Amino acid sequence: MKLYSYFRSSAAYRVRIALNLKGIPWETVPVHLLKHGGEHLDEQYRQINPARMVPVLDDDGAILTQSLAIMEYLDETHPTPPLLPSDPLGRARVRALAQTIACDVHPLNNLRVLRYLVGTLGVDEEAKNAWYVHWLQQALPVLEAELAGNPATGRFCHGDIPTIADCCLIPQLFNVRRFNVDLTPYPTIVRIDAECTQLPAFVDAHPARQPDAE
Amino acid sequence: MKLYSYFRSSAAYRVRIALNLKGIPWETVPVHLLKHGGEHLDEQYRQINPARMVPVLDDDGAILTQSLAIMEYLDETHPTPPLLPSDPLGRARVRALAQTIACDVHPLNNLRVLRYLVGTLGVDEEAKNAWYVHWLQQALPVLEAELAGNPATGRFCHGDIPTIADCCLIPQLFNVRRFNVDLTPYPTIVRIDAECTQLPAFVDAHPARQPDAE
Repeated sequence: MKLYSYFRSSAAYRVRIALNLKGIPWETVPVHLLKHGGEHLDEQYRQINPARMVPVLDDDGAILTQSLAIMEYLDETHPTPPLLPSDPLGRARVRALAQTIACDVHPLNNLRVLRYLVGTLGVDEEAKNAWYVHWLQQALPVLEAELAGNPATGRFCHGDIPTIADCCLIPQLFNVRRFNVDLTPYPTIVRIDAECTQLPAFVDAHPARQPDAE
Repeated sequence: MKLYSYFRSSAAYRVRIALNLKGIPWETVPVHLLKHGGEHLDEQYRQINPARMVPVLDDDGAILTQSLAIMEYLDETHPTPPLLPSDPLGRARVRALAQTIACDVHPLNNLRVLRYLVGTLGVDEEAKNAWYVHWLQQALPVLEAELAGNPATGRFCHGDIPTIADCCLIPQLFNVRRFNVDLTPYPTIVRIDAECTQLPAFVDAHPARQPDAE
């Protein structure tokens, strides 16, 4: 498989973890979101993904977009080890945790939005950073409450094997740390992060380990 | 089942369609996002959903959040009629279409974000509306290109029965029309919308038909 990826994209980072957890061999096709005015805006890349976003998974010519959809696809086509629990309520919980990150935080804080804030709305650096931290601080207490208060939480977000919730959480925490958000109020999140970062699948997916890392 | 819903919330609207397509009896628990300073911000509602968002599905005491996760749960627990195709690539396509709306447009244009733009960043009405339309106009061409260019599109977004992609598309179009966005460049989207709005499941889920409609 080929993954169109940018080392720092947290959506691409999610899929890298999922591919590694599944033990699927894959290669990176780097798409630099900053260089050359943004390689994702090139006509060549638009042919691959009209949404001009990373990641894109190329599975033997089949083109897949949207990180959550890609992870579900990997789970359906490569069931072992599973990225979702087997019971519908557990699956719903894991998907809701993942979507709290992928729908409620990440879309607000990605590059195209920050650029619109600065470029179109004329927001200054301080207000841009406050925006970023605001949406994080809306979601982190929600995640901590769910993870700390639900007996379904185990070594990882749900039970004792990593799920798509962990695949979303760890890339989000990478961004949290870039913005120096204090994680002290979120001990369960910090504990799960420490569990995940012991696993090669997570370590090898880290932005700094990618071929396009700077 | 009970659905905590706000008539105009497009995330709640998605789940109402899904419940109706499945033929599952359900009742509305109205949560008014504007009245009384926002009923979703009440302590009582925070106990139900710490994320303070609608919709929430209460399935005999089990509390489910996040509209995409809820629709997948309904599909897993009530498989007929299906809301996803049976093949992994088809499922990935439907989920990607749904997420193009649920991850790339809706999170940017919902009430809490518009409030932050106006209340915290001091954005005026015109710039707020331009923001709203901008993110729509990023996604609508992507959706139209995928729907018009892919033979998997049928009477609905994918084949000839409605899927979660249609459950997301029709509520988004309700918002599009509120902002008077010209849909002429998107004939496939308009055609699918017309197909859906012939079905009672979609008609009955419309905001104007809800008990809390104004």
